[in-house]
Amino acid sequence: MQLGMIGLGRMGGNIVRRLLRHGHRCVVYDKSVDAVRGLAGEGAAPSHDLADFVKQLETPRVAWVMLPAGHITDQTITELAGLMAKDDIVIDGGNSFYQDDIRHADLLREKGIHFVDVGTSGGIWGFERGYCMMIGGDKPVVDHRDPIFKALAPGRGNIERTPGRERRDPRAEEGYLHCGPVGAGHFVKMVHNGIEYGIMQAYAEGFDILRNVAGPAIPENRRYQLELPDIAEVWRRGSVISSWLLDLTAIALARDPQLSQFTGQVADSGEGRWTVQAAIEEAVPAEVLSAALYTRFRSRQDHTFAERILSAMRHEFGGHQEPGTMVSG
Amino acid sequence: MQLGMIGLGRMGGNIVRRLLRHGHRCVVYDKSVDAVRGLAGEGAAPSHDLADFVKQLETPRVAWVMLPAGHITDQTITELAGLMAKDDIVIDGGNSFYQDDIRHADLLREKGIHFVDVGTSGGIWGFERGYCMMIGGDKPVVDHRDPIFKALAPGRGNIERTPGRERRDPRAEEGYLHCGPVGAGHFVKMVHNGIEYGIMQAYAEGFDILRNVAGPAIPENRRYQLELPDIAEVWRRGSVISSWLLDLTAIALARDPQLSQFTGQVADSGEGRWTVQAAIEEAVPAEVLSAALYTRFRSRQDHTFAERILSAMRHEFGGHQEPGTMVSG
Amino acid sequence: MQLGMIGLGRMGGNIVRRLLRHGHRCVVYDKSVDAVRGLAGEGAAPSHDLADFVKQLETPRVAWVMLPAGHITDQTITELAGLMAKDDIVIDGGNSFYQDDIRHADLLREKGIHFVDVGTSGGIWGFERGYCMMIGGDKPVVDHRDPIFKALAPGRGNIERTPGRERRDPRAEEGYLHCGPVGAGHFVKMVHNGIEYGIMQAYAEGFDILRNVAGPAIPENRRYQLELPDIAEVWRRGSVISSWLLDLTAIALARDPQLSQFTGQVADSGEGRWTVQAAIEEAVPAEVLSAALYTRFRSRQDHTFAERILSAMRHEFGGHQEPGTMVSG
Amino acid sequence: MQLGMIGLGRMGGNIVRRLLRHGHRCVVYDKSVDAVRGLAGEGAAPSHDLADFVKQLETPRVAWVMLPAGHITDQTITELAGLMAKDDIVIDGGNSFYQDDIRHADLLREKGIHFVDVGTSGGIWGFERGYCMMIGGDKPVVDHRDPIFKALAPGRGNIERTPGRERRDPRAEEGYLHCGPVGAGHFVKMVHNGIEYGIMQAYAEGFDILRNVAGPAIPENRRYQLELPDIAEVWRRGSVISSWLLDLTAIALARDPQLSQFTGQVADSGEGRWTVQAAIEEAVPAEVLSAALYTRFRSRQDHTFAERILSAMRHEFGGHQEPGTMVSG
Repeated sequence: MQLGMIGLGRMGGNIVRRLLRHGHRCVVYDKSVDAVRGLAGEGAAPSHDLADFVKQLETPRVAWVMLPAGHITDQTITELAGLMAKDDIVIDGGNSFYQDDIRHADLLREKGIHFVDVGTSGGIWGFERGYCMMIGGDKPVVDHRDPIFKALAPGRGNIERTPGRERRDPRAEEGYLHCGPVGAGHFVKMVHNGIEYGIMQAYAEGFDILRNVAGPAIPENRRYQLELPDIAEVWRRGSVISSWLLDLTAIALARDPQLSQFTGQVADSGEGRWTVQAAIEEAVPAEVLSAALYTRFRSRQDHTFAERILSAMRHEFGGHQEPGTMVSG
Repeated sequence: MQLGMIGLGRMGGNIVRRLLRHGHRCVVYDKSVDAVRGLAGEGAAPSHDLADFVKQLETPRVAWVMLPAGHITDQTITELAGLMAKDDIVIDGGNSFYQDDIRHADLLREKGIHFVDVGTSGGIWGFERGYCMMIGGDKPVVDHRDPIFKALAPGRGNIERTPGRERRDPRAEEGYLHCGPVGAGHFVKMVHNGIEYGIMQAYAEGFDILRNVAGPAIPENRRYQLELPDIAEVWRRGSVISSWLLDLTAIALARDPQLSQFTGQVADSGEGRWTVQAAIEEAVPAEVLSAALYTRFRSRQDHTFAERILSAMRHEFGGHQEPGTMVSG
Repeated sequence: MQLGMIGLGRMGGNIVRRLLRHGHRCVVYDKSVDAVRGLAGEGAAPSHDLADFVKQLETPRVAWVMLPAGHITDQTITELAGLMAKDDIVIDGGNSFYQDDIRHADLLREKGIHFVDVGTSGGIWGFERGYCMMIGGDKPVVDHRDPIFKALAPGRGNIERTPGRERRDPRAEEGYLHCGPVGAGHFVKMVHNGIEYGIMQAYAEGFDILRNVAGPAIPENRRYQLELPDIAEVWRRGSVISSWLLDLTAIALARDPQLSQFTGQVADSGEGRWTVQAAIEEAVPAEVLSAALYTRFRSRQDHTFAERILSAMRHEFGGHQEPGTMVSG
Repeated sequence: MQLGMIGLGRMGGNIVRRLLRHGHRCVVYDKSVDAVRGLAGEGAAPSHDLADFVKQLETPRVAWVMLPAGHITDQTITELAGLMAKDDIVIDGGNSFYQDDIRHADLLREKGIHFVDVGTSGGIWGFERGYCMMIGGDKPVVDHRDPIFKALAPGRGNIERTPGRERRDPRAEEGYLHCGPVGAGHFVKMVHNGIEYGIMQAYAEGFDILRNVAGPAIPENRRYQLELPDIAEVWRRGSVISSWLLDLTAIALARDPQLSQFTGQVADSGEGRWTVQAAIEEAVPAEVLSAALYTRFRSRQDHTFAERILSAMRHEFGGHQEPGTMVSG
């Protein structure tokens, strides 16, 4: 099957490579000529602008957009709406907001163009391991592109099968799922990332507690010097908190137990934020997912204004100069 | 009535001053000779060590300990146990852990000495406004010292009376309360401070949100330059969030809307921590009080190790260098 | 000055009464004929529909809309846009979303009608005490209606003045403030309510901890039977956590220390939610405000699905039937 | 090697079975005669009381205590101290508080008996998969019992190896680790369980959000009916949030997508609580771990008193009857 890929960054590039390896053909476009040239060298068909890109696709065309969520994805889809034709398909495989999907689908539907949203997880490991895909869109359109999804997905591998799934969608076991109508794929991926933040924060707090039990706040007779790399490793083995994120933590800690190369400024993407907003709209308490998000916000500031407000109150009430000794509240 | 005061810091010194002003007599001791001399100049009887201090007290003696919670209070009470006699009273007016009170009371009881714990709120305002006191101990002992508590308390003033309190303890309206047996006073004060942290944090977050709506993350057509000093002021007037802590915030913001003198490193005392521990022991969810505490912990670090763990995971999974652009989760 | 009021519920009705008491004239409308008749009996001019309402207003007309946020406010403002004329003013005094204000102002501007948003705090106490008002809109329009705001506001009363405000907007001390352009009033009111949730939750958790120290989880020697009504009262007196919300808590606890009339299902309004969303948009950590909101969400459910997920995991891993004894994690 | 096991519940019984299968010999004791008889039928040597149990052990004796943390473990170790002799070893493999370990070790040391604490994770899966063990105690004592730990541990299996561990403790890769001196094993296990709570809560909130997007609060055009069993399954495949806890969730959801057998009352054990207390002692912010704990507290109550306080405040301020319509804050 042929597929066009727009956006040849870490994710887009590797998706093309994995498709090529599975015998599919790819037309590629990126604003970086080097990126296009690189993949052309690996067997993809290069294109020099969006019009050229569309021209090289066989009808019904399939254009996979793999760009940063927001303005640039918006612009690209709008441009594609002008270039593509009835029965073509635009796939947004990036991290777009699911409500934008609905807007994009409406826009494309006017031209008879189909829209499919694919939430894609896999990181830099996806090329080898395959990508977990959460897909939204009309069933016939999604079904028709099944060979592409199948090639990108990890497949069953040697992961133990979940009992009781006999009557359920077998594609889930391959690592991809048609979740529902337009937007459903990105909605599920959004929540996936929200969960990811929460899990990451749970590990992060735990390791922080392990590390600080060696600190001066702890009485000497229970001050432990713990080997975090070994603890991460042992937890990978038969413990209930074994996970891929723990595997990654173990790798990082084995390389440098102090993680000294990292400043601790943690970026956040739209998906973590939208998950909390979805929780609020649904009136679902989402303490952990929110707390995980706020930690990232906080990590990128020297001090919040909130903290200065706290200090100011303490000063006004107790005549207190931070940092220093306590005054009775 | 006569009272002895050990510890002449901001709180202890002003308590003595307020008692002197109300016609009570005070013997004072502090390891700082200057502090003792200062209060002697204001009418208190100086003492040069604990033995001298005890000797100058009339029996039954009343020794009010106003020292930092923990080791030094511990040591002082132990020493007093050796110097004082049957029917004397030791009052711990500091911020001691209520479980320490129980230990101290047991120790003193062996000598027939009574113990009273007094949680004292009032800050640098207490001298003029009076102190709110939460008292634990045996009823006859507490009742007998009523004139002291009455002098220190704010009294009814012009604060509107709560309807329906006719059959209730009238002392609460004066600003002091016998809460229960030994430890109950400090327990109530502890929770008081826990609540204080939560309220402070609520305001702090709110002002942070007000301030940042002027920031670049917000679309221009709804980017507001808000005058925080005026907002704090208007909220003092008829709004449901009017409070003393808001009054203090308004003072600080009027002086400097940027609060630039404050670094934002916020200290925390034992009471905020113990409140959360009490909640956990009781299985009471205490989200807000805990979050307020953690904010203070966080404020005193450049970065947590937890944050570096997060960055490390992101790097291993997504090949991501913080801070920078996003990678698909 | 004359003012028209649409919506004669608890807030709207009392605002009219307060204006009448201050010598202003009011035309009133409500879909409830009884509500209109009631206020007519108190001196307001009744109207039987929006057209009649507008007709009775003197130009430039001032229509204050005091309706539930959302659809009904939207609809009413749209209708007013058709009935009113150049230089008239529509005031939205309800709890509308500030981004809706901007939309409403745009709609009205096409007709030359001015829009002013007023966040109004005061509850059932506002009639007597006055209302704290946070105002957004064009300066000349707001300034021109100053007599109305002044009449509604609490005025300085006997609240102690904040030092250092000599060069600042004196209206803040009267209890009303022009916060900025359209939307700024409701934005400030929104954050006000967000803070309110946080403060309420701080007290609520604290009283919960006080109450449960009498419970069976606590060793007998430190199990206290605390009198919550007296504690609430004493904290009103010289303690740093004295506040209006505490006054209200003291009233409720004095009436019934068990609060047995309350089920504990706590409603939440848009403003608490929007505050968290604003925090997220601004990347401001808002742990406490979020936690307070989630508590309300949780309070209205028997059990969350999240809790069942937890139980299911525990069962699969540990063969565990909730509730019951623990199994090793 | 021979080992004695006290406590033949789910964990203790299966540990014995796994040791027998690996050719070790076990003496067993439990207050339930049936439990003892059952394991005797599987090849263990039964004992009828602790004295008999100790008598049957070869010197130096090894007694593994696998009982609920707290009083009963305390009592049993005290009794063993009286029955065992110099150079014997007591292993506490349960979920004891690490500070109790230190006390137990001190008690046993007086008799020359060694103490080892083993945090054991594995649940009902441990018999087949092996147990992840975190061990505290003196190195020679722990090293000497290595064959037992090795038999119980999962071994390397087919789990991918972490690069860069060449110079690190190889036992971690087998699934057991000597973490440090007495208490270190249970400390690490404690944090492990704290993390477990956080991760579980992250998934739980996520699935709750997925489920409620089908609810009436959501506009129809983005209301999705998502198949949670399939989503859990697809996330197991190549997604960054794949984990054992997700595997377990997938099993539970495949069996019953509504999880209707679960009430949602979630128990918590000491370890989750102690983790938060350790964080507080270390001044480490632990938002997520705390929030996860509080969710469990909340899940076991119909309503908190805190919620009634909130309702009472709302009623006093706004004349509001919960549940019902909003009143202006």
